[in-house]
Amino acid sequence: MPKLALIVASEKIDKLFPAVTLGTTAAVSGWDVEMFFTFWGLLSLKKGFQPSGVSLDYKEYEPRFSEAFASGSIPDWRTVLVQGVSTGKIRIYACSASLGMFGMKQEDLESYVNDIVGAATFLSKAKDSNVSLFIS
Amino acid sequence: MPKLALIVASEKIDKLFPAVTLGTTAAVSGWDVEMFFTFWGLLSLKKGFQPSGVSLDYKEYEPRFSEAFASGSIPDWRTVLVQGVSTGKIRIYACSASLGMFGMKQEDLESYVNDIVGAATFLSKAKDSNVSLFIS
Amino acid sequence: MPKLALIVASEKIDKLFPAVTLGTTAAVSGWDVEMFFTFWGLLSLKKGFQPSGVSLDYKEYEPRFSEAFASGSIPDWRTVLVQGVSTGKIRIYACSASLGMFGMKQEDLESYVNDIVGAATFLSKAKDSNVSLFIS
Repeated sequence: MPKLALIVASEKIDKLFPAVTLGTTAAVSGWDVEMFFTFWGLLSLKKGFQPSGVSLDYKEYEPRFSEAFASGSIPDWRTVLVQGVSTGKIRIYACSASLGMFGMKQEDLESYVNDIVGAATFLSKAKDSNVSLFIS
Repeated sequence: MPKLALIVASEKIDKLFPAVTLGTTAAVSGWDVEMFFTFWGLLSLKKGFQPSGVSLDYKEYEPRFSEAFASGSIPDWRTVLVQGVSTGKIRIYACSASLGMFGMKQEDLESYVNDIVGAATFLSKAKDSNVSLFIS
Repeated sequence: MPKLALIVASEKIDKLFPAVTLGTTAAVSGWDVEMFFTFWGLLSLKKGFQPSGVSLDYKEYEPRFSEAFASGSIPDWRTVLVQGVSTGKIRIYACSASLGMFGMKQEDLESYVNDIVGAATFLSKAKDSNVSLFIS
């Protein structure tokens, strides 16, 4: 099976949405997916987290976005991720160093987080990936 | 031939310029290049599009940039892209979901766009790439 | 040995830090690492450079960051990079076009820069990488 390795380093919705869409699309297509949430991206693994909005560079589009989500014409990012997780093909890792930086603990994380790992472990999992992307 | 797969998710000139430079450099060097324009990146495929400037993080450098472009010491991003396209080695895809999000249609897109595809199709084309990058 | 290819296109500390952490972690784990500093990323190769802060999108976290660095709970980005360089497994390239854009010269660069190259040269070095990432 092909493998996709994603490093997710932002929790802005315009970064998080492409990240989970790529991950879930790959998983549904039969790929193995390894997602490593680090830095600001780690915040999105906190229980009940909601993104803090669109990147400042594209703030002007935020109302259009909110509408699209509210109307259901764009699915919620978490719904997309959970759909991917349900395939059993996605593994989600929280960056251990970032966890410490934000003073977060394992019990603060969503139940779909598979493990807390460092960069070395993630690189070993990404080593044989077909496609690798840093999203921030 | 080696293959480069690029996901372009921004239309800021300091992101778009590296994206087209990498794509065209690879194409001129004989690589096959697959470029998928999604989210804000899709806007740059609109006919006659001009980037909305430099990222806010580096706004202070915008005047220097404008000068460099005006003087010709840096080529125009579209000139770079068209040069790459003329090699016949670059394929340019517009993200179908983003097209809907922006209420754009096929006829709004530049003629060098090869196809409108979803993430699954792009991933299948990127699967055997040597280098894959997410630029945003 | 596996190979990691990084394009570093930002000098904000929340981008630079993940970049050097990934590079050094890979090097310490025995990977070959190729790092290409381009655009705003090139600025971080200037002698004595200090990052201009956290991305605007996450400005609110800057005080926490400064504290973490001051207290030593997060190491300095340059210390991390130099540790990686000392393994002999990292090669650091300054983007020739960006050098010209910023009016910088070879003697302005840190001594750990191995070479000044263009995108074509970097792509040839990244061609057989296991993991490739664009960090900006």
